[in-house]
Amino acid sequence: MLTLEALARHIGAELRGDGAAQVAGLNTLGAAGPDEVAFLANPAYAGQLETTRALAVIVSPDMADKAPTNVLVMGNPYLGYALASQIFGRSAQAAEGGVHPAAVLAEDAQLGEGCTIGPNVVIEAGARIGAGSRIGPGCHIGAGAVIGKRARLYPGVTLYHGVTLGDDVIVHSGAVIGSDGFGFAPAFGDLSGQSSLTDLAPGFHKIEQLGGVRIGNQVEIGANTTIDRGALDDTVIEDGVKLDNQIQIAHNVRIGAHTVMAACSGVAGSTEIGRHCMIGGGVGIAGHLKICDGVQITGMTLVSHSISEPGTYSSGTAVEPNSQWRRNVARFRQLDKLARKVSALEKTLREMETPRSSTSED
Amino acid sequence: MLTLEALARHIGAELRGDGAAQVAGLNTLGAAGPDEVAFLANPAYAGQLETTRALAVIVSPDMADKAPTNVLVMGNPYLGYALASQIFGRSAQAAEGGVHPAAVLAEDAQLGEGCTIGPNVVIEAGARIGAGSRIGPGCHIGAGAVIGKRARLYPGVTLYHGVTLGDDVIVHSGAVIGSDGFGFAPAFGDLSGQSSLTDLAPGFHKIEQLGGVRIGNQVEIGANTTIDRGALDDTVIEDGVKLDNQIQIAHNVRIGAHTVMAACSGVAGSTEIGRHCMIGGGVGIAGHLKICDGVQITGMTLVSHSISEPGTYSSGTAVEPNSQWRRNVARFRQLDKLARKVSALEKTLREMETPRSSTSED
Amino acid sequence: MLTLEALARHIGAELRGDGAAQVAGLNTLGAAGPDEVAFLANPAYAGQLETTRALAVIVSPDMADKAPTNVLVMGNPYLGYALASQIFGRSAQAAEGGVHPAAVLAEDAQLGEGCTIGPNVVIEAGARIGAGSRIGPGCHIGAGAVIGKRARLYPGVTLYHGVTLGDDVIVHSGAVIGSDGFGFAPAFGDLSGQSSLTDLAPGFHKIEQLGGVRIGNQVEIGANTTIDRGALDDTVIEDGVKLDNQIQIAHNVRIGAHTVMAACSGVAGSTEIGRHCMIGGGVGIAGHLKICDGVQITGMTLVSHSISEPGTYSSGTAVEPNSQWRRNVARFRQLDKLARKVSALEKTLREMETPRSSTSED
Repeated sequence: MLTLEALARHIGAELRGDGAAQVAGLNTLGAAGPDEVAFLANPAYAGQLETTRALAVIVSPDMADKAPTNVLVMGNPYLGYALASQIFGRSAQAAEGGVHPAAVLAEDAQLGEGCTIGPNVVIEAGARIGAGSRIGPGCHIGAGAVIGKRARLYPGVTLYHGVTLGDDVIVHSGAVIGSDGFGFAPAFGDLSGQSSLTDLAPGFHKIEQLGGVRIGNQVEIGANTTIDRGALDDTVIEDGVKLDNQIQIAHNVRIGAHTVMAACSGVAGSTEIGRHCMIGGGVGIAGHLKICDGVQITGMTLVSHSISEPGTYSSGTAVEPNSQWRRNVARFRQLDKLARKVSALEKTLREMETPRSSTSED
Repeated sequence: MLTLEALARHIGAELRGDGAAQVAGLNTLGAAGPDEVAFLANPAYAGQLETTRALAVIVSPDMADKAPTNVLVMGNPYLGYALASQIFGRSAQAAEGGVHPAAVLAEDAQLGEGCTIGPNVVIEAGARIGAGSRIGPGCHIGAGAVIGKRARLYPGVTLYHGVTLGDDVIVHSGAVIGSDGFGFAPAFGDLSGQSSLTDLAPGFHKIEQLGGVRIGNQVEIGANTTIDRGALDDTVIEDGVKLDNQIQIAHNVRIGAHTVMAACSGVAGSTEIGRHCMIGGGVGIAGHLKICDGVQITGMTLVSHSISEPGTYSSGTAVEPNSQWRRNVARFRQLDKLARKVSALEKTLREMETPRSSTSED
Repeated sequence: MLTLEALARHIGAELRGDGAAQVAGLNTLGAAGPDEVAFLANPAYAGQLETTRALAVIVSPDMADKAPTNVLVMGNPYLGYALASQIFGRSAQAAEGGVHPAAVLAEDAQLGEGCTIGPNVVIEAGARIGAGSRIGPGCHIGAGAVIGKRARLYPGVTLYHGVTLGDDVIVHSGAVIGSDGFGFAPAFGDLSGQSSLTDLAPGFHKIEQLGGVRIGNQVEIGANTTIDRGALDDTVIEDGVKLDNQIQIAHNVRIGAHTVMAACSGVAGSTEIGRHCMIGGGVGIAGHLKICDGVQITGMTLVSHSISEPGTYSSGTAVEPNSQWRRNVARFRQLDKLARKVSALEKTLREMETPRSSTSED
């Protein structure tokens, strides 16, 4: 069991209260029981301090006196919650170590000390996996792929050949890293004018994707997210990037350090996103753009041009009752005409006012 | 073989015609052959009744006399089609039963009677699977996960630890249930003011997701859909919910009974969706919202605020030729200015009219 | 090693220069080293011709004289790049052939000559795989599925029962083909009026999806893309179609030959898309529509009605700073009212002008 004192030490908080009390888990202020620790990070919940049944609350210094409980005082209580959660979560579990007999490893695959390789994992020729990494059941590690230390791949992750992951990377189930970028050369019409080959069929001819994918340290990649390999150069995800579920990163994209993207967003080919950006859910970012550092994009925005100033950006329209929306949408399709009408009205009025003023001078 | 009489009994219809006739399958009114049964649910197709070659047609009472074929009469012919399809579909197939030798089961995994466990399935410690469930090849059932009776998991489904599924649940390939919610505490800048830990690195610190996922009875989950586990409490999908492919459900979302969501929609964290809602494809619902019962959302709408009245809601604009759209979009960016211009025009006109009326009184 | 002469012959270009020079790889004009071949397809990069360090450049006839290097001259240099990339890519690798001992094949599964079947592949009863096809680790080939010649399935692809793929098809990891279309018959309220069955539960009753999926030749399907089987008839993807990652194709959709779709797009049920269309990323296409040949749709457009004229189509609004967007969005919700105000202003002005003109005649 964990004492309050040990918890305080683990998260870097000052303990005020009973250090020997035993902590069973974490919970919200409203739901915490008498053996659980809660936290107050959002001032909107300050009112719950008085009535909480929690054993202790992680609070900021200015709120410490207002809690009727033991308190764990630190400048960033939300960080305290995160650090505390890590004690109770899976990451704290020691890797059991060892290679399951139902795993299939190439002879020259290299495993660091203490790796755990689950059943039905396939590791292809030349792949290397760093010490303490845990590869869940059914993952596929392509030829020559490199995984750093303490990685955690959940069941069913696919790394294509040559993909590299840094240290402390987490990849959730169903993520695919290193699939082919979407590149084709169209060849239709008179092919004899395009190439002297005589057996060329009309169609889109595949551009083999000869680059790779490089993922930095402390990156987390969500379930069923896909990251394509580069056409000639690599696709790059820098340190500390966090990608949610079902994100699509196209070939040759670069995402700067400590940028976070919410679920279902997509980034088209060759776009560069800066550091410390926050991309909402369902956002689409067109190809060949540059997004500078410190940009926030709200959910479901279409980013169709580069952004060179930090700040928050949006597109789209807001939800409204369908009957009203139908009328507004119909007007949107006439918006340019409407604007022209307003300009014409302004012109007419100016012309009307001019004679009126002159006549009023009469 | 199935007789018309048996089919009528199976779907709860009144048979008018040759009950001994043999039914080979189902088809549309237009395409059905002389040994197939068709249905008329949409009045728009009523004209096809006269020319159909079908052996029999499932119809509502008011249309029964208009069909030149055998008829299966019931109030809800579309329901009749659904019930009939179940005779011919896979669900009707008896589970073969048994555990494939290439499955990997923890010693204490519990299997109900008549379960079918495919090759390369991994079932971790403490997991329980109800009677008659079929787990397809390569599925991963995490530690302590619980699956009810008669579940059907298609190949390659991943359930993380502790996820619970009710009875009669169907999960399609590639779905991931119980992956981590997207939660991080940012710690940048002067870390000494945030925690007294001296070895803390700047970055997003992972909030371990300590909750689970609870899925009710008769839920169907589409291919490559992802449902994250809760941060502290559970993510909940109530009875009878139907989720299409590639849907993303974030942590601590609750979806009310008998709500259906079409493909590619996403729901952000802690949002509660009511019962009997119908969410179109590609819809994005922001976090921490409440959507009441009986709400319909049309495709690709961004729901950015709570909805407290049943009805249909929408956002976005309608497709139009690109050249026209470009002009309208440019005007949209000036829409606030345009509205101000119109207000100014109205004011000018009011002022003009007032003196005119007064002068006209002269 | 590959000589320039051999490369020229392979891509159907006219070589001007040192045919015996050895080619190590491909790169961009800017990054190519002295043993690499570059290409000039986009005139915007023509300025880089002078300074490139490339061994040779693939160019069009009009640019051939401007390169200070060896040149490979052909009408379509981008096609030349594609064909050259195929020499260096994985597709050029000979299939190693053979069935991995950890694969699980039904007794009556048929494999053509030279197939490569990876570990943990499951091939169910009656499936047939054409000569030279390579099935990556952990793929699942459902009962009766048919795969043509020279197919390449990357690890973790799922084909449901009865799906058919043509020749030279590439499917990336995590793709699911043949999952159930999303079809249910709602039965709520007084069920006795709907069917005479007495044990019917209220809810959505599953419509078993009795159709299949037919995929043509030379089709490529991206990672985690999902294609549902048809309800009664088949879902059809014609020859030469290229689907990027995370695309969703609903039941009974038909996509015409040589149409390409970028990532994260979705097509709802029964819609028919023509040939030679180009669908951008994140596009949503509603159900039961017809899109004619030669249509381009820009990214994140909602296609809510059929399109019968070739051309480019769009919807949505463009990204802008959030503070400005908020004002414009608020105005959008009043757009119909604004348009009515403008009409009223026009009417008022017309009425004002009429008496004024008449009085000016006084």
